[in-house]
Amino acid sequence: MTARLADIAAQAGVSEATVSRVLNGKPGVASATRDSVLTALDLLGYERPARLRERSAGLVGLITPELENPIFPAFAQVICQALTRQGYTPVLATQTPGGSTEDELTEMLVERGVSGILFISGLHADTTADMGRYERLRGHGVPFVLINGWSPRVRAPFVSPDDRAAVRLALTHLVSLGHRRIGLALGPARFVPVQRKIEGFLAGMAAELGLGEDAARGLVAHSLYTLEGGQAAAGELLARGCTAIICASDMMALGAIRAARQRGLSVPERCSVIGFDDSPLIAFTDPPLTTIRQPVPAMGQAAVRALLEEIGGTPAPPSEFVFLPELVVRGSTAAAPPPAA
Amino acid sequence: MTARLADIAAQAGVSEATVSRVLNGKPGVASATRDSVLTALDLLGYERPARLRERSAGLVGLITPELENPIFPAFAQVICQALTRQGYTPVLATQTPGGSTEDELTEMLVERGVSGILFISGLHADTTADMGRYERLRGHGVPFVLINGWSPRVRAPFVSPDDRAAVRLALTHLVSLGHRRIGLALGPARFVPVQRKIEGFLAGMAAELGLGEDAARGLVAHSLYTLEGGQAAAGELLARGCTAIICASDMMALGAIRAARQRGLSVPERCSVIGFDDSPLIAFTDPPLTTIRQPVPAMGQAAVRALLEEIGGTPAPPSEFVFLPELVVRGSTAAAPPPAA
Repeated sequence: MTARLADIAAQAGVSEATVSRVLNGKPGVASATRDSVLTALDLLGYERPARLRERSAGLVGLITPELENPIFPAFAQVICQALTRQGYTPVLATQTPGGSTEDELTEMLVERGVSGILFISGLHADTTADMGRYERLRGHGVPFVLINGWSPRVRAPFVSPDDRAAVRLALTHLVSLGHRRIGLALGPARFVPVQRKIEGFLAGMAAELGLGEDAARGLVAHSLYTLEGGQAAAGELLARGCTAIICASDMMALGAIRAARQRGLSVPERCSVIGFDDSPLIAFTDPPLTTIRQPVPAMGQAAVRALLEEIGGTPAPPSEFVFLPELVVRGSTAAAPPPAA
Repeated sequence: MTARLADIAAQAGVSEATVSRVLNGKPGVASATRDSVLTALDLLGYERPARLRERSAGLVGLITPELENPIFPAFAQVICQALTRQGYTPVLATQTPGGSTEDELTEMLVERGVSGILFISGLHADTTADMGRYERLRGHGVPFVLINGWSPRVRAPFVSPDDRAAVRLALTHLVSLGHRRIGLALGPARFVPVQRKIEGFLAGMAAELGLGEDAARGLVAHSLYTLEGGQAAAGELLARGCTAIICASDMMALGAIRAARQRGLSVPERCSVIGFDDSPLIAFTDPPLTTIRQPVPAMGQAAVRALLEEIGGTPAPPSEFVFLPELVVRGSTAAAPPPAA
């Protein structure tokens, strides 16, 4: 076999180690490289190993809570693409209202023999959920990676945006525009990203405006992650005199804009609004939304890389990979209106 | 067993036939009805049949060409929900640039033992593609339903919007606003929905404006289905003097708006634009997009119903289910600008 390896490597213009990785179906070889090794095999008249006649290195599951918020299809697209490049077949399983739960989808994927699972905004993000489900999954020998959430009770790779830094970025931008009464519209308080955003908000309000914790907490409103949720939370914050609102999702920000307009406040002249995610199409809204961009491509690729290391038996120590978001300034933020307008 | 069936039916308040359908795991029973039968079983102390302890009636695959255009996640959400209500587990498989092809995804799903497959905007919509792949799939005993496309060479249920009527709706609206030079911006000419839109356009231009076929064909531009594609096609049509542009997707319409503005033409005052799909978030664009709404919920549910009939062995005669779209008038269309403005 040594002679054959050398022949194939010479024909393909790659190292023998690479040829060996390809022939043994190991991940981590660029698909163009793999193709050139397979082509070399064909040219030299060798038969392809059985496993390489099938394209797929295995199924990998991806579980999302829904697809209506465009951030989830955006993650799915990046992750499916990264998996496919590595020879895996991605299976996207989505929770639906009144439909399958995360546990049912997980069980289905395990029954179907997936090599691993990626969870986006799953129960790992819910501080009231039982984390035993993830340890049981590990017990089944199924590696997994958790995106947008964190728990000290689960030993696995986590991938998150830096929620604290995200709110701080938004806050600094609004303070520089002269806003002093700044509200934070969030989803339910039990979620890790919500709690982290509050931490960033309290620290930022203290550092930038010298506001005490109780006063700052009075500028936080919880609702649902939807447009209507954002509208409700923003309504409360406007009633408390806020001139600017930082929202936990772009959908909530669209709801906040609607709430402001319903009260006769134009955006951004009388009320500034900042979203979170930088969803597709959000640059085309009226006004174009200033928002915090989740680094979806980098996060998705890191999650796939971490999962493939787990599948390959060379896991990194369980830890959290935290990605710095960026503020994208568009048309929904402007200088604070004059006091007592 | 007769006595038991009658007891269970009485307890659940349904017919014995329905109880029988539920106990035998047949599809076509509303999930609330199925739940009440199962509850009756529990109350009467009967053990649930083994198959009903598992939630899933089987895997059903859904293949989409991408997830970036929000119409595909919208279809996926409706279809996954409808499948889940019927006890099936949906598996969403998405093509990715440089990744798996439709054939590879199909093969993967067949290998994983799916009960059936739904294809959205697949090769069945491409008049240059080999339709033998679908007959081979039928040969494997895998039922399937094809959404947004049609071929006389495939015997299967098709589900489509009425593309001809859609363009006619848009045209009538623009003519009533005084537009005479109306352009049509489409995807590549080889796709069935594109060809049907052209048919609707030619018929409408003849009927409403008395325009001959050659003159009307001069107002059709082909490009890609993307924003940049819409921008390119609209650029051509504006150069040909169009005051209004009907686009084959909402993404293309956003590109058309950009093209108009680049030429100093405000939308809708100097140029009207109509989209196609009514994607999520598209009501929030600047200006809010006038568009043709694909009846996604009705189409998705019909596709699932047709597939379940095929899976259940009671297929309808192969035919096409055509859904009438509706025009949603928002802010991107207005009266034609005065001639020689």
